[in-house]
Amino acid sequence: MAVATQTQTLEQLCINSIRFLAVDAVEKAKSGHPGLPMGAAPMAFVLWDQFMRFNPKNPKWFNRDRFVLSAGHGSMLQYALLYLAGFDSVTIEDIKNFRQWESNTPGHPENFMTAGVEVTTGPLGQGIANGVGLAMAEAHLAAKYNKPDAKIVDHYTYVILGDGCNMEGVSGEACSFAGHQGLGKLIALYDDNHISIDGSTDVAFTEDVSKRFEAYGWHVLHVKDGNNDLDAIAKAIQEAKSVTDKPTMIKVTTTIGYGAPNKQNTAGIHGAALGADEIKLTRDNLAWEYEPFVVPEDALNHMRKAVERGAGYEDEWNKTFANYKSKYAQEAAEFERYLNGKLPDGWDKVLPTFTPEDKGLATRKYSEGCLNKLASVLPELIGGSADLTHSNLTEIKGEGEFQKGAFQNRNVHFGVREHGMGAICNGMALHDSGLIPYGATFLIFTDYMRAAIRLSALSHAGSIWVMTHDSIGQGEDGPTHQPIETLASLRAIPNLTVIRPADGNEVSGAYKVAIERAKKKQPTLLAFTRQGVPNLNGTSIEKATKGAYILVDCDGTPDIILMGTGSEVQLCVGAAEKLSAEGKKVRVVSMPSWELFEEQDQSYKESVLPASVSKRVSVEAAASFGWHKYVGMHGATVGIDRFGASAPGAVCLDKFGFNVDNVVATAKKVLG
Amino acid sequence: MAVATQTQTLEQLCINSIRFLAVDAVEKAKSGHPGLPMGAAPMAFVLWDQFMRFNPKNPKWFNRDRFVLSAGHGSMLQYALLYLAGFDSVTIEDIKNFRQWESNTPGHPENFMTAGVEVTTGPLGQGIANGVGLAMAEAHLAAKYNKPDAKIVDHYTYVILGDGCNMEGVSGEACSFAGHQGLGKLIALYDDNHISIDGSTDVAFTEDVSKRFEAYGWHVLHVKDGNNDLDAIAKAIQEAKSVTDKPTMIKVTTTIGYGAPNKQNTAGIHGAALGADEIKLTRDNLAWEYEPFVVPEDALNHMRKAVERGAGYEDEWNKTFANYKSKYAQEAAEFERYLNGKLPDGWDKVLPTFTPEDKGLATRKYSEGCLNKLASVLPELIGGSADLTHSNLTEIKGEGEFQKGAFQNRNVHFGVREHGMGAICNGMALHDSGLIPYGATFLIFTDYMRAAIRLSALSHAGSIWVMTHDSIGQGEDGPTHQPIETLASLRAIPNLTVIRPADGNEVSGAYKVAIERAKKKQPTLLAFTRQGVPNLNGTSIEKATKGAYILVDCDGTPDIILMGTGSEVQLCVGAAEKLSAEGKKVRVVSMPSWELFEEQDQSYKESVLPASVSKRVSVEAAASFGWHKYVGMHGATVGIDRFGASAPGAVCLDKFGFNVDNVVATAKKVLG
Repeated sequence: MAVATQTQTLEQLCINSIRFLAVDAVEKAKSGHPGLPMGAAPMAFVLWDQFMRFNPKNPKWFNRDRFVLSAGHGSMLQYALLYLAGFDSVTIEDIKNFRQWESNTPGHPENFMTAGVEVTTGPLGQGIANGVGLAMAEAHLAAKYNKPDAKIVDHYTYVILGDGCNMEGVSGEACSFAGHQGLGKLIALYDDNHISIDGSTDVAFTEDVSKRFEAYGWHVLHVKDGNNDLDAIAKAIQEAKSVTDKPTMIKVTTTIGYGAPNKQNTAGIHGAALGADEIKLTRDNLAWEYEPFVVPEDALNHMRKAVERGAGYEDEWNKTFANYKSKYAQEAAEFERYLNGKLPDGWDKVLPTFTPEDKGLATRKYSEGCLNKLASVLPELIGGSADLTHSNLTEIKGEGEFQKGAFQNRNVHFGVREHGMGAICNGMALHDSGLIPYGATFLIFTDYMRAAIRLSALSHAGSIWVMTHDSIGQGEDGPTHQPIETLASLRAIPNLTVIRPADGNEVSGAYKVAIERAKKKQPTLLAFTRQGVPNLNGTSIEKATKGAYILVDCDGTPDIILMGTGSEVQLCVGAAEKLSAEGKKVRVVSMPSWELFEEQDQSYKESVLPASVSKRVSVEAAASFGWHKYVGMHGATVGIDRFGASAPGAVCLDKFGFNVDNVVATAKKVLG
Repeated sequence: MAVATQTQTLEQLCINSIRFLAVDAVEKAKSGHPGLPMGAAPMAFVLWDQFMRFNPKNPKWFNRDRFVLSAGHGSMLQYALLYLAGFDSVTIEDIKNFRQWESNTPGHPENFMTAGVEVTTGPLGQGIANGVGLAMAEAHLAAKYNKPDAKIVDHYTYVILGDGCNMEGVSGEACSFAGHQGLGKLIALYDDNHISIDGSTDVAFTEDVSKRFEAYGWHVLHVKDGNNDLDAIAKAIQEAKSVTDKPTMIKVTTTIGYGAPNKQNTAGIHGAALGADEIKLTRDNLAWEYEPFVVPEDALNHMRKAVERGAGYEDEWNKTFANYKSKYAQEAAEFERYLNGKLPDGWDKVLPTFTPEDKGLATRKYSEGCLNKLASVLPELIGGSADLTHSNLTEIKGEGEFQKGAFQNRNVHFGVREHGMGAICNGMALHDSGLIPYGATFLIFTDYMRAAIRLSALSHAGSIWVMTHDSIGQGEDGPTHQPIETLASLRAIPNLTVIRPADGNEVSGAYKVAIERAKKKQPTLLAFTRQGVPNLNGTSIEKATKGAYILVDCDGTPDIILMGTGSEVQLCVGAAEKLSAEGKKVRVVSMPSWELFEEQDQSYKESVLPASVSKRVSVEAAASFGWHKYVGMHGATVGIDRFGASAPGAVCLDKFGFNVDNVVATAKKVLG
């Protein structure tokens, strides 16, 4: 069996093992990014070997340090580390299966496929922003649960990010926020390799990144020779840990594709296999005598010490927690409930109900009521708005602000950073400690954070997106602030539940769903009105959770079905009254959520929308896009297929045809 | 009539005129943002009075300085300036109609409603990024057309931005890029007022903005008393103009809502009317003796001197241009063609055509061919990729890179900055000088730049969005890189034409449409495959421009219609062959663009998709969302309503059911 040659120290053996696993896996797959793993292997080795605390045999051990490969295209770096460190999720066979159908080693790290991967990365900049959320979750739980004599929450969040991450706006937003918050246990290693896909970063990216991070309030260090100076890397991480009131960015200057004589330091090695010839030259160059996918025993033995270390860390923590539990039973019980993903018994009893006699309010106002009631029974609810707190109505009253020195508080001011907010919320959710994060802005500004919303749905992050001002009822701000196609574009996202409730009861129903799904690691997007809506006869929490239900019905088979969501359901009810008075048989279906409705069984769906009734009208102050699924080719939509306009909201709605008369007229056209 | 009182200088009269127009208009509308105009009035006055070169009576005069109010919520600042400077687009009646239905003074500045407004702003951060695009357009045209003895392109781009703009990632991306490019004629005034909607910026935004801009490579200045020190403002702008190799950011420290004794320097004045009491106190405080909407004659007379100045500027430029034309006839003709929004005769003759005998290539490869052919006849085509040049295949070969010192070149390396790229392209388009900008990335990453794509559609920016890797055919990169819901979410945007061509001829047709629409100030989004597709029998440029057409037909009324887009049209053709062999009457409709099809007259639409044929199947490797409009409730969709997976593209497509057998099986189910 292979042993360390004279020319390779044990450290070099380990580092080259990472490099060649990446080289060989990419070569076999004929697809992937070898350059980053080859260049970042030294920093990753030092980090995982000397600093990271985790338990390979229990990847979900709560108090583990979190590791995020923000430069997710370098996924083979992470898979190599997981394999070498003894995680069961990545075997050498998995590595040979890199980027193949249903393998545990997909092209980019996917937290839902590979134990040991904390967050899904690949869309650049998301990972570092998730890292900010992970660090916030740690800071929050630590401030809330730790006791002077029992520290049960105490870990770091380490991120490796690249030039691409640093060019993306989302990373700037999140890092500015992290600097503001002084998240001392967030440590980012910037793989400064001067190369992106288009070539040298000189063609597009010549800013002084370190200075920018200093401007954000970060502690900034520089390792000049990230290829060889392992001591400098270790010293920098140590120094980073010693600064507790600022996040640290360590710029580690490296050579992309280190070791490949002809391709290193070029874009050619960024995202393509090296090819047999260059691999041979690289093996020669790095004196690597091992066959593809063979790791020298010394290296594997050394790296696998992580297993024993990890068991020790967890044992130690278990003792700490047992001690904590004996002294602080109530806190411990709550904390354990978090970790078990449970909700407290009867939590949903706090959700308010309404009758038509209750004064109608904006659904954002009902949302405020729900959020505040829920916050009183769900201490895991934490979040805020992207600088629209008093428009979104998302403040938890009587609770302080989450700020440096007051991380126990739950009201987060994200600033005007929608995208960063989204990725940070996802990070908090994926901290996997039971927190339910929520982020709020105007519905239209989901456009700014769409990549993060998509990732919540893809990567099983149970974030709640609280979106207000959900139509042209927004009013005077005009078309830039009025969603039109927004609901359609969100409904199209797989695994995301979109709910647009019509009144107080439906808002409570929406929150019931959102909270339950959050615990099941599913995100929900809630759309609320700016303007007041009446409490309708016949709504209920239970019915709303079905996604669509009969709100008003007629005797026998309806001549026509009017269906609507949110603030337009009242128009369907009004139109039904008029049409009924004229002898038409009209059913009104309130349809707060397409996704919830589609989850119902066929007989329920048929009972609400019978196939035999083909005369149907949808009413929604938004793009008609998608509604033909429910109204068919013989139905009609009352929608908006142009941009909005600046005028008082009630004027806008009326001018765009959102009034009872127009719904009646449209229905009559369909009735023929 | 009112005259300057002893206590007010002429400058103060002008500045207070701006302030009170804003105060009174917001009060009358009971909606709007008075705080920014009140605080930024001094810098805006100095800029417009002493520096800005424009012609109020010809707002489109080419060589005007461009002004962008990136903090668009402060729109009354811009309307007050336009009114005072003598633009016909904003009268005092318009100001009284602020934020009302169809008024010229909507809630946020809309370039398509109000002459003198260059770009639509409001979604924060877009304006400054548009400003980068405006400055790039100027730099490009200047480098290309100016001669040592005749400088026909020579203007500045001035931007006022606020804290909100500076928190948004898109501004960071664009400003980093502007610093890299050294756009010396871009001058940004940062209204540093310490207040955003949630209160003091201390709650979320404590970074050192000036240092960050220095890190980007900007020239940075600070005016400490932006409320009163007009000389310092003027001096700073003068100094900014003197630095020609870097953009300048002037931090101007101001008091939001300056002059309102109880509300200034609070969030309360950010986005709400002051109320009668506070207005009275403000009038007293600023010794403002004029009735609402009354501007003292001295102020108006002074500001209106802009009319005479502007006529002079234009006259002078006309002489310069006449001289230029006499010496450089060919360049002048091209330049005039740009300004007239014309295309050169026969430009579309360069678009290649193909027959089924031509080897099938990826549609991104055909796109590369079209772009290069078009670039040879359309010198106004300028753009590039967000660091995926050789994946998107968007390089204009033989052309250099747009870089500092080489602004005449047309290949732009935007860096990994999709959102910034989008807003920059829009800025170039809205420079209104005939340039046709294009921006490219993977289709999935439209999520990162969606706000900019929406704004291209809303604000009449004729950008072309070149999006490749348009399905799970993307392959190994996996679900983060594979669009699913993306096409649906883009088709839902009003005024955006989305085209997903099936082969070489359809790609040429797509570009024909995109170029024509760009000149009509309409954006087009093109979706291209990563993988190869065959050239199909029966496609043509002309047919593709109809949006949908009969590709394969049967005798008589079809039993079933198979419709598809892009790489899936070949599956429809294959399935039709099999079904026809079994005696079914099958029509295949190639449907590269829903929007183009919807623009056709009813009889054409009926001829392609007859209402009598209700058995229909759509085939598209994307979310089925939206397709029911065409397949109805009795049809079926072959689509993908989950996230993608990491595996070779051909494997992904097959596993997800994109093969002829599955299309045949689905069709048979529909046929019953």
